[in-house]
Amino acid sequence: MQIQTKQDVRDMARGAAFLGVGGGGDPYVGQLMLQQEVLKGKFPKVIKAHELADDARVLCVCGIGSPPVLVEHLLSSTMLGKLVDQMQAYLGYEIDALISAEIGGLNSVMTLGVAAQRNLPLIDADGMGRAFPQLEMVTFSVYGCPASPVMIVDELGNMAMVHAQNDATAEKMSRAISSSLGAMVYSALYTMSGKQAKECTVHDTISLSYDIGRCIRESREQLDNPFQGLLGLLHKPEENRHCKILFDGKIVDLVHEIRDAWHFGTITMEANDGSNDVMVVEMQNEYLAARLNGKTVIIVPDLICILDAETAEPITGERLKYGQRVKVIGLSAAEIMRRPECLKVFGPAAFGYKEPFRPIEILNQ
Amino acid sequence: MQIQTKQDVRDMARGAAFLGVGGGGDPYVGQLMLQQEVLKGKFPKVIKAHELADDARVLCVCGIGSPPVLVEHLLSSTMLGKLVDQMQAYLGYEIDALISAEIGGLNSVMTLGVAAQRNLPLIDADGMGRAFPQLEMVTFSVYGCPASPVMIVDELGNMAMVHAQNDATAEKMSRAISSSLGAMVYSALYTMSGKQAKECTVHDTISLSYDIGRCIRESREQLDNPFQGLLGLLHKPEENRHCKILFDGKIVDLVHEIRDAWHFGTITMEANDGSNDVMVVEMQNEYLAARLNGKTVIIVPDLICILDAETAEPITGERLKYGQRVKVIGLSAAEIMRRPECLKVFGPAAFGYKEPFRPIEILNQ
Repeated sequence: MQIQTKQDVRDMARGAAFLGVGGGGDPYVGQLMLQQEVLKGKFPKVIKAHELADDARVLCVCGIGSPPVLVEHLLSSTMLGKLVDQMQAYLGYEIDALISAEIGGLNSVMTLGVAAQRNLPLIDADGMGRAFPQLEMVTFSVYGCPASPVMIVDELGNMAMVHAQNDATAEKMSRAISSSLGAMVYSALYTMSGKQAKECTVHDTISLSYDIGRCIRESREQLDNPFQGLLGLLHKPEENRHCKILFDGKIVDLVHEIRDAWHFGTITMEANDGSNDVMVVEMQNEYLAARLNGKTVIIVPDLICILDAETAEPITGERLKYGQRVKVIGLSAAEIMRRPECLKVFGPAAFGYKEPFRPIEILNQ
Repeated sequence: MQIQTKQDVRDMARGAAFLGVGGGGDPYVGQLMLQQEVLKGKFPKVIKAHELADDARVLCVCGIGSPPVLVEHLLSSTMLGKLVDQMQAYLGYEIDALISAEIGGLNSVMTLGVAAQRNLPLIDADGMGRAFPQLEMVTFSVYGCPASPVMIVDELGNMAMVHAQNDATAEKMSRAISSSLGAMVYSALYTMSGKQAKECTVHDTISLSYDIGRCIRESREQLDNPFQGLLGLLHKPEENRHCKILFDGKIVDLVHEIRDAWHFGTITMEANDGSNDVMVVEMQNEYLAARLNGKTVIIVPDLICILDAETAEPITGERLKYGQRVKVIGLSAAEIMRRPECLKVFGPAAFGYKEPFRPIEILNQ
C-alpha cells in the first residue's frame, strides 16, 4: 500500500471510519492532517511488524479527548511532532517506529500524519483492530506492555507525565488531564520493543483500513451494488474472517444520551423487505451489539458498521438520522481480540453486558 | 516556638483551624501525623525566612483534594517522605528547606510533620496567611514563582508530573489528577530560592498559628472569657493588625450546596443581645464575606473565623450546626495579601463578588 495522493488519504480515512464502528473520533480531521503532509510530498512509510528488529524501539501516539470537541478544537501537527521529540528526550533514546493505538476513527489517520512528518515508519498494526473508548482497551496492555510513562501535551504548551500502577489508572488520570485542558490532548505512551510489536498487536490493520476504503470507492464506481465488493474483500471464511450484511432498513427511532462522559445510544431500524423485522443496535461511544427481533446477531468485540444503503459510506454514531436508509454490516474481530484474556478487558462484560461473547459466525449459522 | 509535646501539636492544629477560616481541610488529620513524629522525638525545626541564604533551595509540599474525603482517606506520612525524595531526584538537587503553601487547615500541620520526618527546616511563612481553595491563590504565584513542575503522588504509587504554562492551568490539571485518584493526593511544587522565600511569602504565619492555638487554650484555662485573650493577642493596631468580634449569636439558618466541586454555604445568625441584628456569612469552601443587617463588615482576603461562643474553639464549615452559639471574629489579612496584584488573584472578584475589597478596619470604623 502507498499513501501518496489525496485519494489515497480519503480511502484510508473512509476505511478508518468503517473500522471505527460508529465512534473513534471523526477521521476527517486526521485526514486533513495527513493530506497536508502528503501534498508536501511527505508520504508515510508503512512497514510490517516482522521487518523490525526484536530490540527496535516503538512508540504509540494517540489523541485523548472527546470526539465532538475535536471538530472545533483541531489537531496541531506541530504539537504532535514536538510530542515525539519531547518523548524521545524524556526516554533518553531515539525511537525506530511508531504504532497506532487504534485503527478505527481518528487515531490511525493522525498517526500516519505524524509518521509522515517525522519520517518514521508506521507499523501496519494497532492495539484494537477497531475503536474502543479507553486507553487500556488495547492488546498491548493485555499482553504486558504498560501504558506508562504517558506524556500528554496540548497545543498551548502544557505538559503532563503520568506513571500509573496499572493501565486502567493511567486511563483515568489521562482522561482527567485531557478534560482539564479542554478535552483534546495528544499523548505518547505504550513504549514497546520490536518483539512486543510483533506479539502484542493486531496485525495488518493499516492496510486493511486502506483496502476497505478503496474497495468502497471502487465498488461504488464500478458495481451496481458497492456492498458486493465489500463482502468480496471482507468475507474470507478460509482465513477465518467472516463478514455479513446483518440488516437492510430504515432508522425509525434514535435515542442518544450523554452520561458519565459516555455517548449511549439505541438505534432502531425497520426492514425494507416488507417483513416486520426490527433491528436494534446499542452503542456506548461505539456500536456494541445488534439484536434482530430481540435476538443477538453480533456483539463486541466483533465489529458492527452502519453504512449508507446506497453509497456504502460508513456513518458514525453522531451522524445517524431519523429516516436514514442504512445497511448494518458485521465483521469478525481478529483472532487475538477474541482470546479470553482480551475479552476480559474489552469483551461484553467490560461494557456491562451479562451475556458472553459469541462470534458472529456462530450467531448467524 | 517549639513543637515538642502533644499539647504543642494540638495548639498548632487549633491555630491552623482558626486561620483555615472555615475550610482548608480538617487539621486533625495533619495533627495525628505531626504527633506521630513528635512522639518519636522528631521535632520540626522552624526557621525564619531571613535565616536562609539567597540561593537556598526551597520546596513546597501540600495535599490536594477534597476535605471531606481526607477524613476517610488518611494521610500517608511514608508517601509524603517519598514524595520529597522523588522530587529531589527529579530536580537533580537537594533541597534546604520546606515551606507550606497554606497555613490554614490541614496543609501547615502536615508540612510540619514532613519537615520533622525528613529533618528539614520549615520556613515560618506560607503563601496565603489563611486558606484558599486553589493552588494559584498564593503570594508565591503572584510574585513570580511558578507552581510547575508539580509532582503528584498517591499512596498506591501512582505518580504524575505537571508542567503548565501558568499556575491557573497547573491548578486545573492537578485538581483533575487528584479527582481521578480518589480526591486526595500529595504534591511537591513551587520550587523557589531562599531570596524568593523572603520576598514572595506571608511571614511568621507558623508561629502566629501556634500562638493563636496556645492563646485559645490558655485563655480558656485562665480567663473567664477566652475571647479576651485572643483579642489581646491579635488586635495590635500599632502593628497594623486589626481583630474584632463581629457578632455574638446563634445559628438560625444553614444552607449548604456542593456545586462544581465547591462547597457553597450561607450561614445566618441572630444576635444574643435581644436586638434584631442578623449576620449572614457566605462561604465558598472558606468563609468569604460577612454582612451585618445587610451591610458588609468583612470581605476576603481578610479573615473570618466562627468560634464556639463558650470555648472559642474554631468551627470549620462542615461542622456548623443549627442552633449553635457562636462568635464571629474578623482579622485583617497580612499587608502583602492586600496589595492590588494579590487582590486580583484572591480578592473579592476572584470569587465572583462585584464589590471591591475594603479592609476590616475601614468597614468597622
